[in-house]
Amino acid sequence: MRVHAAGLNRADILQRLGRYPAPPGWPADIPGLEYAGVVEALGPGVTRWRAGDRVMGLVGGGAQAEYVVVHQDEALAVPTGMELADAAAIPEAYLTAWDALVLRGRLTAGERLLIHAVGSGVGTAAVQLGVWLGATVAGSSRTPAKLEAARALGLTEAVDSGRLGAGGAKAAAPFDVIVDVFGAPAFAWNTEALAPRGRLVLLGFLQGAKGELSLEPVLRKRLEIIGSVMRPRLPAERGPLVARFAAEVLPHFGARLQPVIGARYVMTEAGAAHAAMDRDQVFGKIVLAW
Amino acid sequence: MRVHAAGLNRADILQRLGRYPAPPGWPADIPGLEYAGVVEALGPGVTRWRAGDRVMGLVGGGAQAEYVVVHQDEALAVPTGMELADAAAIPEAYLTAWDALVLRGRLTAGERLLIHAVGSGVGTAAVQLGVWLGATVAGSSRTPAKLEAARALGLTEAVDSGRLGAGGAKAAAPFDVIVDVFGAPAFAWNTEALAPRGRLVLLGFLQGAKGELSLEPVLRKRLEIIGSVMRPRLPAERGPLVARFAAEVLPHFGARLQPVIGARYVMTEAGAAHAAMDRDQVFGKIVLAW
Repeated sequence: MRVHAAGLNRADILQRLGRYPAPPGWPADIPGLEYAGVVEALGPGVTRWRAGDRVMGLVGGGAQAEYVVVHQDEALAVPTGMELADAAAIPEAYLTAWDALVLRGRLTAGERLLIHAVGSGVGTAAVQLGVWLGATVAGSSRTPAKLEAARALGLTEAVDSGRLGAGGAKAAAPFDVIVDVFGAPAFAWNTEALAPRGRLVLLGFLQGAKGELSLEPVLRKRLEIIGSVMRPRLPAERGPLVARFAAEVLPHFGARLQPVIGARYVMTEAGAAHAAMDRDQVFGKIVLAW
Repeated sequence: MRVHAAGLNRADILQRLGRYPAPPGWPADIPGLEYAGVVEALGPGVTRWRAGDRVMGLVGGGAQAEYVVVHQDEALAVPTGMELADAAAIPEAYLTAWDALVLRGRLTAGERLLIHAVGSGVGTAAVQLGVWLGATVAGSSRTPAKLEAARALGLTEAVDSGRLGAGGAKAAAPFDVIVDVFGAPAFAWNTEALAPRGRLVLLGFLQGAKGELSLEPVLRKRLEIIGSVMRPRLPAERGPLVARFAAEVLPHFGARLQPVIGARYVMTEAGAAHAAMDRDQVFGKIVLAW
């Protein structure tokens, strides 16, 4: 694969800080969990793709480079008419959000969904997917402008995530599924805000993984706390996930689904891109493109 | 229903202590979550049962009495040839264990299962069900004699639950499903002992619901923490559960499944039965019979 563009993720920043080493088999010093580009050459046994095909996908690392080697089953066709720089914003955000909502969270039409950090790449993807699936979609952010921007994607209810820890941000009604990236400090608020049989899908620990937590509401309301992370998955698991995503979700890009790119940097300015993610003011994905 | 016998549960003790009030619609001062007996009279619209039928089932309370009124869809036929006093040990233990293992925990053949407090009513039922489902079954207890007794039910691996908090009781290999009743103090041990994509089904908090807990392994190993409790469920939910249990599990009683009765008391000696449960030396269910 000749890389045209690669999405930036918080994992890249953690890796740069030495707090998130690449899984075995992936380059230790080249970040980048997703790419979009053009097939440059084929290894033996490749049947799905030809040189020149426009593809995108997840990797365990190394995507922020000129070239990346991928397994044919883990690549997805870039939707016709979509620019490669936009396509680079799809794999991590949409596969993670779709896996969280549908496969792990079992979200169904008519249910109430809350997405924390709704202005992130995964957050904006989850809003689109939640609306598409027929859920009522709420989102949280500390930044009023991000909540406003999310309304344009179909968000109908906004929560100030700066007030979760103090228990000050009451939800209008209980949620069936909450997608969380804050972690332990939001756990009490989340388990209180879930309806009976609600599902809390944990995708990250931006505010910490440990705390004085009560499992009491988990039992009383028969909740499910579901952890998910995409990166360490092996090709044997990632292949079927990608195949299902290609069949069920990919055809809807362009119409109902459209990646939200908040900022675009030249690949050689990765430092500036990291700094922008640290400032936390970008709505949607940050993409690095050659 | 004329009650012949009623199983004793820890919930009865908590209710006596004022710490577990009956749910709305059930008698506040008569404990008893399960019964076996004989249909005495039919209300209008009853089509499934006739006077004289031997039935058993779950109720929200009030089963430790001469009579109890139940919905026809929540009653189960007592297996042919089984004594009513034995049947009274089935509903809470087997419905709870089967719901935890199959419906919530999605246990499949070949997986490794750990059952905490394996000498309890739910524990002994879970061992039988786990073996029947084709799992490798481990169990924990503080009491060596209970672990030994559980081996006769098919247990092949024993864990000293007195050493969970200190992290001193290493498991031989990771588990796919853990059924827990201890709560927060066992949470770190449990999440460490689970395999990737493992499920921790929480059925109680014998040692407390709150503690300094880490969600880190939940995310890293993509675990599921699943809370379950039977009592507050409404008839609309309990009916389908009972129907499925009647079709899939009930036919196997007598052969593969046989309730374990550890002690039997006359109904009027409920106090002695509570004291026996408090001493925690009984293996299997305690049953109160008229």
